[in-house]
Amino acid sequence: MTNIDWKDKKNLSMLADFYEFTMANGYLECGMKDRIAYFDMFFRDIPDDGGFAIMAGVEQLIEYLKNLRFDEDDIEYFKSKGIFSEDFLEYLKNFKFECDVWAIPEGTPIFPQEPIVTVRGPIIQAQIIETMVLLTINHQSLIATKANRIVRAANGRAVMEFGSRRAQGYEGAILGARAAYIGGCVGTACTIVDRDFDVPALGTMAHSWIQVFPSELDAFKAYARLYPDNCVLLVDTYNVLKSGIPNAIKTFNEELIPKGFRPKGVRIDSGDIAYLSKKARKMLDEAGFEDCSIVASNALDEYVIRDLLNQGAKIDSFGVGERLITAKSEPVFGGVYKLAAIEENGQIVPKIKVSENVEKITVPGFKQVQRLYDKKTGKAIADVVTLHDEEIDNSKPYEIFHPLYTWKRKTVTNFYSRKLLVQIFDKGEPVYTNPNINEVKSYCSEQIDSLWEEVTRLESPHNYFVDLSKPLWTIKHNLLEEHK
Amino acid sequence: MTNIDWKDKKNLSMLADFYEFTMANGYLECGMKDRIAYFDMFFRDIPDDGGFAIMAGVEQLIEYLKNLRFDEDDIEYFKSKGIFSEDFLEYLKNFKFECDVWAIPEGTPIFPQEPIVTVRGPIIQAQIIETMVLLTINHQSLIATKANRIVRAANGRAVMEFGSRRAQGYEGAILGARAAYIGGCVGTACTIVDRDFDVPALGTMAHSWIQVFPSELDAFKAYARLYPDNCVLLVDTYNVLKSGIPNAIKTFNEELIPKGFRPKGVRIDSGDIAYLSKKARKMLDEAGFEDCSIVASNALDEYVIRDLLNQGAKIDSFGVGERLITAKSEPVFGGVYKLAAIEENGQIVPKIKVSENVEKITVPGFKQVQRLYDKKTGKAIADVVTLHDEEIDNSKPYEIFHPLYTWKRKTVTNFYSRKLLVQIFDKGEPVYTNPNINEVKSYCSEQIDSLWEEVTRLESPHNYFVDLSKPLWTIKHNLLEEHK
Repeated sequence: MTNIDWKDKKNLSMLADFYEFTMANGYLECGMKDRIAYFDMFFRDIPDDGGFAIMAGVEQLIEYLKNLRFDEDDIEYFKSKGIFSEDFLEYLKNFKFECDVWAIPEGTPIFPQEPIVTVRGPIIQAQIIETMVLLTINHQSLIATKANRIVRAANGRAVMEFGSRRAQGYEGAILGARAAYIGGCVGTACTIVDRDFDVPALGTMAHSWIQVFPSELDAFKAYARLYPDNCVLLVDTYNVLKSGIPNAIKTFNEELIPKGFRPKGVRIDSGDIAYLSKKARKMLDEAGFEDCSIVASNALDEYVIRDLLNQGAKIDSFGVGERLITAKSEPVFGGVYKLAAIEENGQIVPKIKVSENVEKITVPGFKQVQRLYDKKTGKAIADVVTLHDEEIDNSKPYEIFHPLYTWKRKTVTNFYSRKLLVQIFDKGEPVYTNPNINEVKSYCSEQIDSLWEEVTRLESPHNYFVDLSKPLWTIKHNLLEEHK
Repeated sequence: MTNIDWKDKKNLSMLADFYEFTMANGYLECGMKDRIAYFDMFFRDIPDDGGFAIMAGVEQLIEYLKNLRFDEDDIEYFKSKGIFSEDFLEYLKNFKFECDVWAIPEGTPIFPQEPIVTVRGPIIQAQIIETMVLLTINHQSLIATKANRIVRAANGRAVMEFGSRRAQGYEGAILGARAAYIGGCVGTACTIVDRDFDVPALGTMAHSWIQVFPSELDAFKAYARLYPDNCVLLVDTYNVLKSGIPNAIKTFNEELIPKGFRPKGVRIDSGDIAYLSKKARKMLDEAGFEDCSIVASNALDEYVIRDLLNQGAKIDSFGVGERLITAKSEPVFGGVYKLAAIEENGQIVPKIKVSENVEKITVPGFKQVQRLYDKKTGKAIADVVTLHDEEIDNSKPYEIFHPLYTWKRKTVTNFYSRKLLVQIFDKGEPVYTNPNINEVKSYCSEQIDSLWEEVTRLESPHNYFVDLSKPLWTIKHNLLEEHK
């Protein structure tokens, strides 16, 4: 068995938990091949106790679903297990994706307990895709959410994604950089992401560049001669203030200025960045290089960046590596995929999963998520999870109420509503046009602007309301009564 | 630009930080095309303050290096940037990997400050591969190390890798599961890893299986009829003790026993697992199913597992998901790649990177790592980083000493030594035969057995010694004096 086969394949259909297939085989054997089921992906907690998360990964989910198929070697593999029926192997061989799928578009702020992906279709198919739906959306939403936290801490300064070498696997680096860009980073250090995803790649030099030249000054000058219009020098190989900055200034004066170029920046990758950046700024300014940026890197995240800026660090942009690309402070986005309904004789029968932990009780039924915005401010007021075809009449006051503490009520007036789940597959056919990555990035930024700043605070943010519509609440309530 | 191109490619040559290419172009332009450099990958800290890490990812590193090349579209991409010389584009077009590479074999316990990969070759090439060397080894070593911590906590009970849905990207799931198997897991939930990497896939049913049947008992019975010889039932959908276990027992008695099968197990995925497992064990035993295993899952890691077992939980095996596949408690393996030497007129000139932080000072020169074992116990005594061709005379007492606190000395007698770095590429040609994954797994387990248990303790382990040989220490010492 060769170990790189899987990289040659366009589809990741076999990237699924084995139990998806034992269950799928079971559904077939139990005569449930045509049983229509509804599954929702949703999450319960926002990473880092933040006020919102960011949806990402829809484009890759669509690619996966478009390519979903089982090849001869997949069938052979299942056959070799000796537990799958001939009918099931035949089913896989002729597999054609038939589900309807809805997803919240990439870049949208999302909140716990609301469906962010809904799948309707034959239960065999809706079951088999569980692992990849979760894996794809969990990963990119995690990184987009983390990146945006870091970008907010940087308070208008540029944040670059620098983490490939510490990512968890190749797509950890590649799709992680894509998600970081959606979340607000200005670029990545990773070349392949620039080539294939139109995320600008940035970067200058490593310490090794400095070390192979006879001196730091020689290394700087060689670089400045090569890249005069994009000259960012790494100044901490020997000593930032005694050697790096003085040599950088000398290089700027001798190699750039005579040729009509201005320096782009210096990068500090070690030491106390608050102290060093202030001293470096002063030295650069006194040498007439007020326009030379100071880039900081080395074990940064939103907490370190906030503290550096609070201490008056003179940093113009940040390169953020391992703590962004792995979402180190909380490296798991806990999306789950739960059965919400089945169809019986063409009727939707809502299903609930009860639990002693009230947070873990699922919301039954075929649903839509609607975001209510204040007409005057444009700010998002609340999300309401409704039945799929339920219309909210924007011309009348609308009462929202807490799904558990139902006495907590609020009447919303002068608002408009927007349905968040959009259809991406119709009976197995892709029906959604992915916006390009820069459109997603701008949309993300606009949508975050529509949140009250109480919700975007890094720590102890205000809890944004996600309520159930009255009809949906009634269904849930009745099912809970039945299960008592 | 299509976004899935990169998945069709066998090579990940463009998965490199952009600065690798600006530097490479610079080396060429500065006439350093044929300059031979030595780079070491090493790490500084063991994740989770453990006593050792486990090397993994060498097989994938070899695949990457074997496929390293730049295609027409890569060259076009670089051309479009407008900063690379024609000579460099020509160099990339005709790129042929020419480096010598050494690596510590997969499954070997590894320690901070020792080279785990060494690359010797034209500096352009040794520089370009930096990102992928680090990414590949960092990721799998992280997961193998974490998996082994969890396996040690489980104290002989089976640990299964269940984390695909929460992994950081597709190879996060796939290669993570591979690394987890090397680190001691008995299998994975992920199908593709079984098919392509010979890691056994395991799994039974999700809550959705239970929910689509009219009752839990119906769902159990259907499953038992389908998979009578591998019947593991998920018992927590409604209520473990009042419903799940009684229905499981009824299913075993009615569907398995009459047909001559024994049950395989029950799985508990929520609630207080210590309490529930003890009660469930008692119920199963009283029903005559002492041989029915109890499998626990749900937010487990080495700390939770240790505590559950300390409280006498009756668990036979563990399914561990997100906290393993992301190494949640410390999701970064901080390997770095540093210049150690260059050649000048055929002579090796050691290079050092100084730092105010003594831990960050690099070990210069072309090196080997030698592990000393006690002849009587077979236990590893210490690692000695030596010059590459230095021989340790095992017939004579050997004095090791702390590289910083040189007065700390110890004389080792009655020992044998083993060189850890093995050559995997010779002038660009692969020269290493990868052992199969089960060989790697067994070797890993044996090698961990060669460590004193003081080193394998989960918390506050003994610090294993990694010393420098006298000749190497002298080189480092002299270079530090020079840089004063």
